[in-house]
Amino acid sequence: MVGDAIASKLIALGHEVMMGSRDAKNAKAAAWAERIGGRAQIGTFADTARFAQVLFNCTHGANSVDALRAAGEKNLAGKVVIDVANILPPAVRGPESLGEQLQKSFPEAKVVKALNTINCEVMVDPSKVPGSHSVFMSGNDAAGKSTARQLLEAFGWRDIIDLGDISNARATESYMSLWLALWNTLGTLHFNIKVVH
Amino acid sequence: MVGDAIASKLIALGHEVMMGSRDAKNAKAAAWAERIGGRAQIGTFADTARFAQVLFNCTHGANSVDALRAAGEKNLAGKVVIDVANILPPAVRGPESLGEQLQKSFPEAKVVKALNTINCEVMVDPSKVPGSHSVFMSGNDAAGKSTARQLLEAFGWRDIIDLGDISNARATESYMSLWLALWNTLGTLHFNIKVVH
Repeated sequence: MVGDAIASKLIALGHEVMMGSRDAKNAKAAAWAERIGGRAQIGTFADTARFAQVLFNCTHGANSVDALRAAGEKNLAGKVVIDVANILPPAVRGPESLGEQLQKSFPEAKVVKALNTINCEVMVDPSKVPGSHSVFMSGNDAAGKSTARQLLEAFGWRDIIDLGDISNARATESYMSLWLALWNTLGTLHFNIKVVH
Repeated sequence: MVGDAIASKLIALGHEVMMGSRDAKNAKAAAWAERIGGRAQIGTFADTARFAQVLFNCTHGANSVDALRAAGEKNLAGKVVIDVANILPPAVRGPESLGEQLQKSFPEAKVVKALNTINCEVMVDPSKVPGSHSVFMSGNDAAGKSTARQLLEAFGWRDIIDLGDISNARATESYMSLWLALWNTLGTLHFNIKVVH
């Protein structure tokens, strides 16, 4: 769902997009490519990592290190990896965030944690939630964050808060516990928080 | 600091207030009572728990169970205990929140987790942050939450979100990790989040 939402938005914005899966013939990826047509491509994780300048990690957080290993460390070198994944439930998370684990496992990738604090429909269309609200990013590489910021702006985000280096992925991943409680309380996935000061 | 802010606000609202400490002659508590005069009283944790209908737990989260044990389980029975404490850094927190630990340790108290997601100056004066913003509460006892809501309203809060039972203390305590990152990023303690939907 998350990969579909982001890949479709990137296509709409005019990008060349490949959706990577474990299996090059993944049925959901194939259905997506058929629905979109034109510039939509599919491939293995490794095909995708070779193809792209910028990668979105939309795998389940518990499987993300394995998925990026399958993509190939060499293929990730120098690439911006925007990590939108979470490990749920947040309670089972270790002291280190997924964002930090990815950066440590793939030191030559430019990992940027972003967009993991909202539902995927809101990620690619912030107007799904009324008024102004905030999105966070963190990462060690300034150029990687600049690329991520441009993409977030293209998605429609205006209040983009740079929390600093990738250790701050802990902050946004920990927020998932409050996000889940708010989803349960509000009864909608179309919500977010606005930082006010 | 938190106890001073809340106790002073309660005095300003016309309540009788006792500030409890380990030691009945605690210097900071005595200085507070002297500064405030009139209805400001001080005592041990046990004196305070016997005195009050509603207690605010403003101790350091790591010491809160011990402080409430010193207050006396019998003295807490039937009382509303508004737990505003956090255990910092959030990473060392176990799978169970402080709010849940307090409710489990003192089953006859009506524990309400609230106000732990903002700086103490904002807790008692939400107008320190411009515009509308949100405060959360959770607890198992409806009457306890009703009392807490009335106090929050008297403090000036308008957007009070009831997250449900005390297990939701986990959600707001986990948020402290994002709160710390935002404090570091924004450079001010006078900030908060507004839930938008």
